[in-house]
Amino acid sequence: MHQEQHLQSSDFITDVVIGMADGLTVPFALAAGISSAVSSNSIVVTAGIAEIIAGAIAMGLGGYLAGKTEWDHYYAELKREYYEVEHMAEQEKKEIRAIFAGYGISEDTQHRIADELAMDKDKWVSFMMQYELGLQEPNPARARTSAITIGLSYIVGGLIPLSPYFFTTVPTDGFKISAVVTLICLFVFGYFKSKATGQPLLAGALKVMCIGAVAAAAAYLVARWLS
Amino acid sequence: MHQEQHLQSSDFITDVVIGMADGLTVPFALAAGISSAVSSNSIVVTAGIAEIIAGAIAMGLGGYLAGKTEWDHYYAELKREYYEVEHMAEQEKKEIRAIFAGYGISEDTQHRIADELAMDKDKWVSFMMQYELGLQEPNPARARTSAITIGLSYIVGGLIPLSPYFFTTVPTDGFKISAVVTLICLFVFGYFKSKATGQPLLAGALKVMCIGAVAAAAAYLVARWLS
Repeated sequence: MHQEQHLQSSDFITDVVIGMADGLTVPFALAAGISSAVSSNSIVVTAGIAEIIAGAIAMGLGGYLAGKTEWDHYYAELKREYYEVEHMAEQEKKEIRAIFAGYGISEDTQHRIADELAMDKDKWVSFMMQYELGLQEPNPARARTSAITIGLSYIVGGLIPLSPYFFTTVPTDGFKISAVVTLICLFVFGYFKSKATGQPLLAGALKVMCIGAVAAAAAYLVARWLS
Repeated sequence: MHQEQHLQSSDFITDVVIGMADGLTVPFALAAGISSAVSSNSIVVTAGIAEIIAGAIAMGLGGYLAGKTEWDHYYAELKREYYEVEHMAEQEKKEIRAIFAGYGISEDTQHRIADELAMDKDKWVSFMMQYELGLQEPNPARARTSAITIGLSYIVGGLIPLSPYFFTTVPTDGFKISAVVTLICLFVFGYFKSKATGQPLLAGALKVMCIGAVAAAAAYLVARWLS
């Protein structure tokens, strides 16, 4: 049960982490790329803001619709499972026995489990949903909260690498400050992400920082080569 | 077993869908936003390419590292479960009985299940991993393939909304063609996505198209207002 508990408490943190990870990374790399190709900070800022808006909506709305799809899928499977339990009871019992046969449970006990489960239709279906199909009832309020959290975290994360371009006049100056600030933030953020997910702290922090650095370096070089 | 089969066959399609969905959406919206604020197509193209590179690396590398993290987490939990089965056997048996008590299984049968499972330590641990923790053994080759598939799909998807800006001279012309081409692609792509995931086809296609349209409209308006 440790796992279940763990996942529930970190739903919100997971969403913030997902949103901020991409929010820090992609606008940082995009701004770095453009800064190597243009001479005006206002273009970097305009492109950066456009990216943050587009990314936040794509992630937030995408996340919301993915949650709704999961919900639809769960109820379609639930309906089907009720149908199967009513109309193909013997087949369903056989499937239960097969699951337990795979774990070395004796035939006698397999039959007991199947027969006892079959006595309560709701519990039977709930067992099949969880253990045959591996599906848990999704929470629709959670899908909405999740979408808003991810979208807002993307915006907050994205404004960090972009802000140095507000306060400088030359894109290359903005880039230098942005790189230092963002790489530090990615490291700190990677540290807390690793803490929340129970990973080695230093390795996790370095990983997150490296994704941002590699993406920014690649965007910078390609944009420079193009221009 | 239908569900398992379904998921396996669509791993590759799911990755292409994830990569192309974002690849079509975000660069489309970004290019639309910038096109409303600048007078040269070359800036739209440079920013678009920088975004595609940054996004592909962030998604691909991010996906790869997420896969590796899942793998580490699985083996940490596996080690812990072996420890618990060896050193806290009675507690683990109690947990098994509690699972089945929740489904209305008689006490006698609960004991039989727990005792029979406990006879083979490997099967016992494998049962606990799957049914207590809901964890399945991840596939490391899959994490690598998945990362490459998502990254490449993002690039392919992203070049579609960007290509009209290669062949036009004024950003607003590029934008008009890009909007028509991309919205059609998003619709077609949403159709196949819905087919792959068993969703209503028309509603699914419209959903995917709307995310792109909303993101592009918001980026367009904000960039125009900024400039």
